[in-house]
This record gives sequence, structure tokens and C-alpha cells, in this order.
Amino acid sequence: MTSTLALSAASPGAAFERVTIKRRDLRPDDVLIDVSYAGICHSDIHQVNEDWGPALFPMVPGHEITGVVSAIGPDVTAFAVGDRVGVGCYVDSCGTCEICLRGDEQMCLSGPVATYNGREYDGTPTAGGYSRSIVVKEHFVMSIPEGMDLAAAAPLLCAGMTVYAPLVRFGAAPGKNIAVVGLGGLGHVAVKIAHAMGATVTLLSHSPRKRDDALAFGADHYVVTSNPENLRALAGTFDFVLNTVSADIELDAYLDTLKIDGAFINVGFPAKPYQFHAGSIVMHQRSIVGSNFGGPAATQEMLNFCAEHGIAAEIELVDAGEVSTAYESVANSTVRYRAVIDIANTLLEN
Amino acid sequence: MTSTLALSAASPGAAFERVTIKRRDLRPDDVLIDVSYAGICHSDIHQVNEDWGPALFPMVPGHEITGVVSAIGPDVTAFAVGDRVGVGCYVDSCGTCEICLRGDEQMCLSGPVATYNGREYDGTPTAGGYSRSIVVKEHFVMSIPEGMDLAAAAPLLCAGMTVYAPLVRFGAAPGKNIAVVGLGGLGHVAVKIAHAMGATVTLLSHSPRKRDDALAFGADHYVVTSNPENLRALAGTFDFVLNTVSADIELDAYLDTLKIDGAFINVGFPAKPYQFHAGSIVMHQRSIVGSNFGGPAATQEMLNFCAEHGIAAEIELVDAGEVSTAYESVANSTVRYRAVIDIANTLLEN
Repeated sequence: MTSTLALSAASPGAAFERVTIKRRDLRPDDVLIDVSYAGICHSDIHQVNEDWGPALFPMVPGHEITGVVSAIGPDVTAFAVGDRVGVGCYVDSCGTCEICLRGDEQMCLSGPVATYNGREYDGTPTAGGYSRSIVVKEHFVMSIPEGMDLAAAAPLLCAGMTVYAPLVRFGAAPGKNIAVVGLGGLGHVAVKIAHAMGATVTLLSHSPRKRDDALAFGADHYVVTSNPENLRALAGTFDFVLNTVSADIELDAYLDTLKIDGAFINVGFPAKPYQFHAGSIVMHQRSIVGSNFGGPAATQEMLNFCAEHGIAAEIELVDAGEVSTAYESVANSTVRYRAVIDIANTLLEN
Repeated sequence: MTSTLALSAASPGAAFERVTIKRRDLRPDDVLIDVSYAGICHSDIHQVNEDWGPALFPMVPGHEITGVVSAIGPDVTAFAVGDRVGVGCYVDSCGTCEICLRGDEQMCLSGPVATYNGREYDGTPTAGGYSRSIVVKEHFVMSIPEGMDLAAAAPLLCAGMTVYAPLVRFGAAPGKNIAVVGLGGLGHVAVKIAHAMGATVTLLSHSPRKRDDALAFGADHYVVTSNPENLRALAGTFDFVLNTVSADIELDAYLDTLKIDGAFINVGFPAKPYQFHAGSIVMHQRSIVGSNFGGPAATQEMLNFCAEHGIAAEIELVDAGEVSTAYESVANSTVRYRAVIDIANTLLEN
């Protein structure tokens, strides 16, 4: 076991404290990573606040991690010391079920091991990327392509993959007319990726204030949804709508913007249940689809795609001592567009 | 124009009266059909009662029609006088849009012409199968296979097609584990067809009283949903669930019975909106899908499939003078399993 500095919340909603935590000795297929950056995902806040039910404390969040390999186990073949790498939402899975074997380790039938607020298969609680170092099984470590900034790459490991997976699955491509709901941490990356895939992209936002940014990121159109008439004017328009927001929305109004066979793809987690009328899906054979991240192979593919197309997240760097303040900005949607903790330079011994 | 007897509701909720209506002279591609039987679809009741919004009156319902060809226009090639035929929910569409061309005339982008409570493209209100004769464009007439009873075939034209379409689309087949919700007019045909396709079929019903029937129709399992524990025990079980009921159901509980990538396919029209939590679809990438009937080619395929596998609806014959009483039985779910009006033998001149 080795010791490392980390930012830890002692109990639900507690402020982060600088603590020392243990990392396991390297197993043969383990990679030790010196963490450079950790993105702040909205789900970090929900888990620290126990919004989603009982969580494990003390908690060290962080599943948008980039860094540099500092040691490897004897069986590691894909990485060497000095390599630039990333880690996303999961750090282990059974590896043998049909779902793992098809590359969807994030839905492993035995339950995947979350990067934090989870337990290893031996019962040890996991601790995430708000930490100077982390030990991760080689299979769950991705390579950060040359030329990609480590700080701006961090949010791709969760936010990027969360939107890349459905854009691939539903075939964003030239000739496809799609909408992205919300221009936040996920939405802004979705616009960039969908644009790079060649789709015609409409950004749907409750306010007009992000219009210029959306167009700069590659959106073809920007529609303000606070006026219901604007959505009604889009009836039957989109092949699919990718909802990245966790606000309560009037689902029927969005379903009506879909073509025949269109899909409303949801990655958001609003507090209230969604409501819709059968008539919004039956006559036009529309669907409401859940989408959940992707496995390590798909995540590497996403990183390579982003590198090839010059895509990264828009970020604001945050010092390790300012994470609680940054959480407020994320919760208030004032961050443009993802807060990333500068772990290597600011999480230091006193 | 020719005259024919029909059962007509003069206004919303009115009792049926025996009236004389007009049918158009045959166009070159028209078929004149002597109606033998007309199934009573739940949607007939909703439309007569204006449950679904303003409707056209006087109304002659009926879109589960079987009969015998009594005349044909000069361009008709597929049918001859004396042929046994059927007509379903639609009697015309634009025929040129991409959706018609792919065989989904029921979703024609110009709006298909409903068999009743609709308007022809020239504005003439349509009148359905509660009538001694009907004139229908050849393209929307199906052949009733030899050996299939005309009375028991009638409900296949709507109920049969409504469940056959999603069973084909979602691949009901050996090795697939599926559920059908509700053993009514649609559900009982769904069980028969899904069983014939080789799927393992579980019938989900709020009450235990139809267990023996469901098993006789081909269900492998029967689960009573009034005890929520029974649904919870099915977590992660089904490739898809086909919901045929229009009752208000707790959608989350049904979504939880789906495997990863599983689909809740809805053909029901409950009065209240559906509610579900994002967590019920996101983590397991489940979907909620609307399904809407099928075009004439698919309907003919369905009839052929049913004939090949000896499938027909279970019916109760109703006299033309007893339709209002039959509506009460349908509304109360006491019909086993589809009421069919014996038009040819009971809708007579006084």
C-alpha cells in the first residue's frame, strides 16, 4: 500500500478536506497513475450530497481523470511509464459476462466497479480522481492521444463518452437532423462531436444566452425553448433528440419534434419522473431511449475521434482548495463549460 | 352512388340506428365488398364517445372488416367477384411519400385516410364496416387465406396487425423471452402469434382469472401483477414487453422487468399520461417504444402467417341490434375475447 493526497468529503454534503488515503500495491495488470487533472461532473455533486440515495463515506470523487503513468505491473503491455492516460467512470468489471464480452463493461451483469463511491470485488471502497495518484487495472485505462491537452481531455472521459455513445448508436452523420438539449458540460461536447460526424445540429436551450457559443461549437441552429411555440414549430423535424439536461422538461413537447421512428435519447437524471402521453409515441412510432456511457474500447475510440477532429471540452481550471466553490458554480450552471481540478499543481502537501 | 344499410351513431355517445348510407360508384381501382363481419374494436367505442377529441358524426364505425367481393373496377387485378377479403384501419394514403413507399401507409406523411371517422382526400367523410357494403381502393384490400373463418379473421385486421407489427420488428423468435401485458382483444392474439413465432411468452395480468385461457393460447407463464412483488421478481427478465392495455400502469415496475437493451413496446392509450424515472431506462439502456399498426403488405403477411399457424381471434358473435350492449361488455372487459358483429345475417331491411 502507498499513501497519496486526496480531497475527501467526510459525510454527505461535507466540505472537502485534504487527507491522506491508501492505494493498493500494484497487481500484475495494474497501472499507477500520477493524476494531472480531474473534471467535476454533475454526478460528483449528486453523490457527495447523497441526492441519489445512500453513498459511501468518506468519499473521494472524480471519474474524469487524466494523468501520467508512473509505474506498471509486470503483466501490463499497453502502457509504459511516462504515457499520458485517462480513466473514466469504471475501474473493473467481471470481464466474462456477455455484456462485458461485447464491450459494454459499464453494464456488466455482475455490476461494474465504479471509479468512486463503489466497491472493488473484494469489498474495498473505491476512491476517485480528486487525488494525487490512482491505481487502475490496465483494461480500464485509456491512452490520451498525442497533441490532446490533458486538462481539456479530462471531461471527455465521462461527459464525452456519455454523448459519443448515443451519437454513434443512432447514427449521427451527414443527412441526419438532430437536436441536443442543453449546452452544459455534456451538451457542448455533444454539439462538437455531432457536428464533426456531419449531422445537422440544433441546440435547444431554455435561454438565449449561449447562442453564440453553441454556433461557435458547431451548432447549425439554436432554438429557445422557454417559448413553447418555438418547439411546436419544430414538429416532426428531428431524427433524434439527445437530452443532456437533468431539469424537469415537458417530454411531450420534445417528442413532437421527432420524425416518424425518431428517438428521444435520455442521459439526464431529473429529480421528478418524466411524464408523456401515449399519443406522443404511438402514431409516429417514436421511442424514448436510455443511454449509458460505453466500455473502455468505445472510450478509446471516442478519444481518438476527438483528437482527429480537434475536439476537447471547454474548461475552467479550479484549484484543489476551491472545489466547494466550483460545485456551486456547476450547480448554478455558470461554469463554461466544465470545471477541471488542477490536481498536479494545486493538491500539494502543506 | 349506391345505397346500403349501416349502423350509425348520430352524435357523440348516441345509440346506433339502422340507416341508409351512400357508397361511391366504383373507381377503376375500387373493390365493392359485401361485408360479412365487423369486429368491435375498443377504439370504436372511444371514437363514438369522442374520448379522443372531436370526431365526425354521424359515425359508422368498423375497421375490422371481412366480406366477399361483389364487384370490381376495370383496373383491379388482385381480386375477382366472390373472393374473400378483409379491410383494416386505413383505406387510402398518398402512395408517393417515403413512408408509403416503404410500406407504412398507416403513417403516410400526408395523413392516411381512416376507414371511418376520417375524410377521403376529396373531403368526403368515411364510413366503416358496420355496414352491408363498402367500397375500398384495391391497394387497401387484403385477401383472407383459404380455410380461415371470416368471422374469426375480422379482428385480425386491426388487433392482429397491431400486435404482429411489433412482434416482427422486435424479433419474437426462439430464445427470446417476452411478456404481453393484458389478455384482451389484442393481448390474446399477441400470445398466439408470439407463441407461433417460437418466443417464450409470459402473460402479465392484473387478475388471475384468465390464467387457463392464456396458457391454452400458448403462454408459457402467467403472472398476476396486482401483487407488486410478482413484478419485482421478474427484474431483468424480458427482451421486450408488449403492452396491450389502456389502463393506467406503473411504468417503472414494468421497465424494471426488462433486460439490458430491453424495450417496453406500447400500443395502449391510457387516459392519464405515463410516468417513469430516468433511472428506469438509463443504466440498462432500456427504451419505451410506440408501435402503430402496419401497411397493407404487412397486413397480408400477418394474415398469411396466422393462416399457416391456425391462428384466429376468439370471438363472440353479436347481432346488429345488440351493438350497444356489446359495447358495454367490451368496456367492462367481459367479452372473450373480441365481439364481432354478424353483419350479413343480422343487419337486414325491416
